[in-house]
Amino acid sequence: MKKTLFATPQDAETAFYDAFTKGDLDAMMEVWADDDEIYCVHPGGPRMSGVAQVRESWRKIFAGGQSLRFQLRGQQYLHGMMLSAHSVYEHINVAGETRSRGPVIATNIYLRTEHGWRMVAHHASPVPAPVTAEAEPRRQVKTTLQ
Amino acid sequence: MKKTLFATPQDAETAFYDAFTKGDLDAMMEVWADDDEIYCVHPGGPRMSGVAQVRESWRKIFAGGQSLRFQLRGQQYLHGMMLSAHSVYEHINVAGETRSRGPVIATNIYLRTEHGWRMVAHHASPVPAPVTAEAEPRRQVKTTLQ
Repeated sequence: MKKTLFATPQDAETAFYDAFTKGDLDAMMEVWADDDEIYCVHPGGPRMSGVAQVRESWRKIFAGGQSLRFQLRGQQYLHGMMLSAHSVYEHINVAGETRSRGPVIATNIYLRTEHGWRMVAHHASPVPAPVTAEAEPRRQVKTTLQ
Repeated sequence: MKKTLFATPQDAETAFYDAFTKGDLDAMMEVWADDDEIYCVHPGGPRMSGVAQVRESWRKIFAGGQSLRFQLRGQQYLHGMMLSAHSVYEHINVAGETRSRGPVIATNIYLRTEHGWRMVAHHASPVPAPVTAEAEPRRQVKTTLQ
């Protein structure tokens, strides 16, 4: 059983980016559901499915030892009772690099489980730079569709 | 009001790829929810949000006039009562090209509306070739998480 109970999808998302920032593999996997159906697509990569593949993918990323900072922008939320999908632009700064990396667009999906909200999917892809006006995040508002 | 009522997320997905194959813009937009919160990320591209941007992005793609055929593989489904997320590998053949294009991994999200299930998000990204064993679609099974 997981130790932390995330009461909302947003709580799980906050924990996800906190674990990502810290490179904390155990904290990262605590955010994910213990389910074979989870999947993760890192920028430019294939799909990693199931707990073992997802964990290994994060282990490799964190093994690089980079210190990252995230700015999240342009959030859009699609809320269901059991599933919630968040779209977010990740602006990533790597310690030791003077320039920000190009933004990444991520779709994060959360499932309400017996043990609170858990991440079940993370699909991230690089956004070409420069970002055109058409692609600028439009707003920061949170809208509930149902 | 939309003309077609999709009784399941799978029905909407079938209509989505049918419209994509045919390059039929009206049929494509009939699959999408009429909502400002919908979004679409084409492979390598930024996020297009809202009906106008999503429609314009498909209009540009279809204006190319390419005849496409899709093989869908490795489907994984996350089902909620109001939202459903499908992960699928798209293997795309373009008429006149002898080789298949590298696969695309897509996350498709559907919302149950008053007018049946509608697409609310399509996030697609290219998968690097050759696809490694680790990235092969594992199975075709459908699993319901709740």
